[in-house]
Amino acid sequence: MAGDNKAIVILSGGLDSSTCMGVAAQQGYDIYALTFDYGQRHKREIESAKRVAAHYKAVEHRIAMLPFLKEIGGSALTDTGLHVPLTGVNPDEIPVTYVPGRNLIFLSIATAYAEVVKADALFIGVNALDYSGYPDCRPEFIEAFSHAADLATKAGVSGGHLKVMTPLLRLSKAEIIQLGTALDVPYELTTSCYQGDVEACGECDSCRLRLQGFAEAGIVDPIPYTTR
Amino acid sequence: MAGDNKAIVILSGGLDSSTCMGVAAQQGYDIYALTFDYGQRHKREIESAKRVAAHYKAVEHRIAMLPFLKEIGGSALTDTGLHVPLTGVNPDEIPVTYVPGRNLIFLSIATAYAEVVKADALFIGVNALDYSGYPDCRPEFIEAFSHAADLATKAGVSGGHLKVMTPLLRLSKAEIIQLGTALDVPYELTTSCYQGDVEACGECDSCRLRLQGFAEAGIVDPIPYTTR
Repeated sequence: MAGDNKAIVILSGGLDSSTCMGVAAQQGYDIYALTFDYGQRHKREIESAKRVAAHYKAVEHRIAMLPFLKEIGGSALTDTGLHVPLTGVNPDEIPVTYVPGRNLIFLSIATAYAEVVKADALFIGVNALDYSGYPDCRPEFIEAFSHAADLATKAGVSGGHLKVMTPLLRLSKAEIIQLGTALDVPYELTTSCYQGDVEACGECDSCRLRLQGFAEAGIVDPIPYTTR
Repeated sequence: MAGDNKAIVILSGGLDSSTCMGVAAQQGYDIYALTFDYGQRHKREIESAKRVAAHYKAVEHRIAMLPFLKEIGGSALTDTGLHVPLTGVNPDEIPVTYVPGRNLIFLSIATAYAEVVKADALFIGVNALDYSGYPDCRPEFIEAFSHAADLATKAGVSGGHLKVMTPLLRLSKAEIIQLGTALDVPYELTTSCYQGDVEACGECDSCRLRLQGFAEAGIVDPIPYTTR
């Protein structure tokens, strides 16, 4: 059942998923990029995803619409009634930018896509260190999901195994940036800011994590910021 | 974290999910019905789902669009290039009506919905006996999913548990119909046929399973058939 060296890469257009793409490409996989349009507040990151997928000559780049995630709300990333925090969050709390069930849904759809194109690997840029308290970025979740996915699919029934690859799981943001820089990941094409303007705000959680990562890595972030 | 006796019920508009609805209602849950529009060949079953949800006075009935399942293809139920079989299938083979990853995706989205409305139960009408060889209807899959879902969610992090209820898991079609009849499930509102005409064809796998179930249960199927 194993695919012919094909991998699904979940690609948001941000720094982490683009680094994952670089790792998958470096490992020689034919890339099937998968981006979710789930009512994020801005579409700019989807444009970034398209540019990154094109850069890596993906065999296909699918944009999966998930309007339901916005309809049910529950996150500052999709719910216009919730404010995106500009200040640091309590590390013991799950932040309002958490989207309920997001990685569970993303991985499930990627598993279906893998089954159809007969890919035997699936890359997702989850990170357990800088995960900002999202429960669905924890290693134990990824492991449990992988087990469920094998039981859900035709391939699994035939004894196959879908490799859920999380190359960034235990890296710090600085280490991710160092890895991506070594792999020539085109960070100038990526988008991280929660605010979604043409220039990154430099102040939201996502910008702060990104800027701190570049600073610690001793590398200059190639994207423009409003505040600098 | 437990909800106030709220349950998500995945409702296709068919016989099994409508029976599940009857079980959830009988157990006193406030019902949040969830139907997926994933490019099935016909929309008639979505209309059936609306009527069943209304019958049970669901607090909400959400229709989640999943165009991606049709876009990637791979099933006779969504892919117009594949023929829906009218004759019996080999019980050792997974039939072409299998939709890759379907229950995995449905359960994932239902888990997100449960997290947002704070439901503590989720009903799905999967069936391990009459499941026609679908891997994602097996008890071991449901168990693995439930574990992954708890690890994916805020509620799970706080020690909560989403009960994945599968009241039909080990029932035959005849037993499902007997159960539903005892619970006054409005089978006249349901749709099972793969062909999707105004009257059921009576010949496709789904019609055959349904008719055989009613015959074995000694109950008359209230819906009209072309062939009878």
